[in-house]
Amino acid sequence: MAKKVVIVLAEGFEEIEAITCIDVLRRAELDVKIAGLSGKSVTGAHGVKVEADITLENYDGTADCVVLPGGMPGSKNLQNSKKVAELVKKMNGEGKWVTAICAAPALALASAGVLEGKRATCYPGFESNFAPSTKFSAESVVVDGNVVTSRGPGTAMQFALQLVEKLAGRETAQSLRQGMLVN
Amino acid sequence: MAKKVVIVLAEGFEEIEAITCIDVLRRAELDVKIAGLSGKSVTGAHGVKVEADITLENYDGTADCVVLPGGMPGSKNLQNSKKVAELVKKMNGEGKWVTAICAAPALALASAGVLEGKRATCYPGFESNFAPSTKFSAESVVVDGNVVTSRGPGTAMQFALQLVEKLAGRETAQSLRQGMLVN
Repeated sequence: MAKKVVIVLAEGFEEIEAITCIDVLRRAELDVKIAGLSGKSVTGAHGVKVEADITLENYDGTADCVVLPGGMPGSKNLQNSKKVAELVKKMNGEGKWVTAICAAPALALASAGVLEGKRATCYPGFESNFAPSTKFSAESVVVDGNVVTSRGPGTAMQFALQLVEKLAGRETAQSLRQGMLVN
Repeated sequence: MAKKVVIVLAEGFEEIEAITCIDVLRRAELDVKIAGLSGKSVTGAHGVKVEADITLENYDGTADCVVLPGGMPGSKNLQNSKKVAELVKKMNGEGKWVTAICAAPALALASAGVLEGKRATCYPGFESNFAPSTKFSAESVVVDGNVVTSRGPGTAMQFALQLVEKLAGRETAQSLRQGMLVN
């Protein structure tokens, strides 16, 4: 059965990061649900209004992987949400995939405590929000145990393909890379 | 004054291609309008539902640049639209920027006749739809006069940055490339 992914869209989400993940993970035939944080209609940082599949409030919490896109104020809105912190902590405790890109690792993941003792990356400069026990790395995508982090719009495709590799296998990721003409 | 861009979303548009263009061109502070072909609410090839700014029917036709994203059946829907063909021919006749990616150059642009005598690219295999006078090139992004074409989701970022270079200048494109962490 296809693994389940929930991607949380807050007002002001970064559109390239969010949509690249949704598109690529759905191409991999994963079961991807778009969950709106403050309602079903969510507007990104550059004015693109997307209709979510569900609201996070109505989400059953059974995902194998959560994806938090970055962007401003999207990342800040994720950080300020108790629901997001609860979901991320619960999934981390169960060893599920907890993933974020851009400012979201440094804001939403760090403040939920899931980066403690982990190696992680984020948008340049935001690493000042990491706890002392988090080891910052400037790689485009960092995998440490169940936590996958990445840096910005320009690394979104590599991030999405890394998630496909973990959730659907290396062959699927390789075939998508070729089909989408990713160098 | 910021140059005007219209990006046409047909049902089944390729999400990464469309959203990357909208996001990057808006970061360049261009005046980008999302025009829905068959209504204001448009669903992409991977189920992402986007709310357009306007319908193409209500568009005033004053853009400096038109962008046609690919995807299936999105590209086919663009090709089958009289409105799209009229807009593309009119803008081409006026020397405005006429641009498309993935299957859209080979379907929507070729059938409107604007690739005749031009060098162009498209998603691999679709070049069989090019007229004999169109010279196919396998480069990621091809600029020939006022026509810019590209190949697929993996080349969408380069395509969008090329459009920024043409519409807002090389420095803006370079600064966005760095800010978005594009290699």
